[in-house]
Amino acid sequence: MELTLCLNYPDWLPEWLLSHSGCYPDPNTRMRLAIELSQLNIQHESGGPFGAAIFDLNSHTLIAAGTNRVVSCGASFAHAEIMAITAAQKKLGHFDLATNGLPRCELVSSCQPCAMCFGAIPWSGIRHVACGARDSDARNIGFDEGPRHPDWIKALNNRNISVDLDICRDEAVAILQAYVKKNGPIYNTDL
Amino acid sequence: MELTLCLNYPDWLPEWLLSHSGCYPDPNTRMRLAIELSQLNIQHESGGPFGAAIFDLNSHTLIAAGTNRVVSCGASFAHAEIMAITAAQKKLGHFDLATNGLPRCELVSSCQPCAMCFGAIPWSGIRHVACGARDSDARNIGFDEGPRHPDWIKALNNRNISVDLDICRDEAVAILQAYVKKNGPIYNTDL
Repeated sequence: MELTLCLNYPDWLPEWLLSHSGCYPDPNTRMRLAIELSQLNIQHESGGPFGAAIFDLNSHTLIAAGTNRVVSCGASFAHAEIMAITAAQKKLGHFDLATNGLPRCELVSSCQPCAMCFGAIPWSGIRHVACGARDSDARNIGFDEGPRHPDWIKALNNRNISVDLDICRDEAVAILQAYVKKNGPIYNTDL
Repeated sequence: MELTLCLNYPDWLPEWLLSHSGCYPDPNTRMRLAIELSQLNIQHESGGPFGAAIFDLNSHTLIAAGTNRVVSCGASFAHAEIMAITAAQKKLGHFDLATNGLPRCELVSSCQPCAMCFGAIPWSGIRHVACGARDSDARNIGFDEGPRHPDWIKALNNRNISVDLDICRDEAVAILQAYVKKNGPIYNTDL
């Protein structure tokens, strides 16, 4: 076996991050960045139609970003949220973003988290989650959101993690539909 | 940002895999390998007290393995199950282990999957899950299993993924307790 598990971010992402550094006080603007990531992932054929970004909850500074890389990296866990969270953990130097001394972090995702990403959120130290498209929107184009906890928002709230839904939902859904029109691969459909 | 997300497996793991290649028809023997991984992870101080291995469900050949690397790699998703599943996906060349042409795969884990790993299982293509310690055993030493789906076994069964519990549970619990005696770090405790 190889000693190192390596997954590449899209080659356009580091430059995108550099050119988008700054503060974004408006929640819609933050979501539009996540949606832009999902759109660029389609345009560059670098993965599925999902994007996510991590912001400082106080200053609203962009900290890290990720896109879906499941097919491109050959790894089923490489969802946009996991890629973004891990980039933030690497950048801030700790596996728990809620550790004292680090900024409180927000996860902004172009779509509601699936069963896995929901379960990953408490471990990550994320304190707030903002979602664009609904899981039903993802299912409408053939994706599966998995056996997510039936009361997932309350389960996160119970751990002091707040959740906002339907931020710029129509814009997020438009990107999902653009992916279908481009015949992007829909995977994990036969479960 | 770095273009590549890299996580190291323990440096002792590739050699362990080479020296343990072969078929293991007895479910208890397969579990003892996962438990041995958890014990070695403590002994080498390479991570938390959790080990996992992937086997071919038909031939019972050992395919891949992983251990908990959360603290050592600074990544909250680096649970033993995720590390093992990803190693198997890299080795077999596909993000979906249930793809036609690949062996049907079993995940053998020294402890029941947490909320995240439960959600990761359907995406991985794993067809059978064998668990050693219970989530209550992990909680007893201070670990948290997260807001897992309340009916997680049925949820996996509904997706044609079978689950066996309590395989060599006492031996798995003994390793968890050895970790506590060695004052191993318990993380994600303040959720």
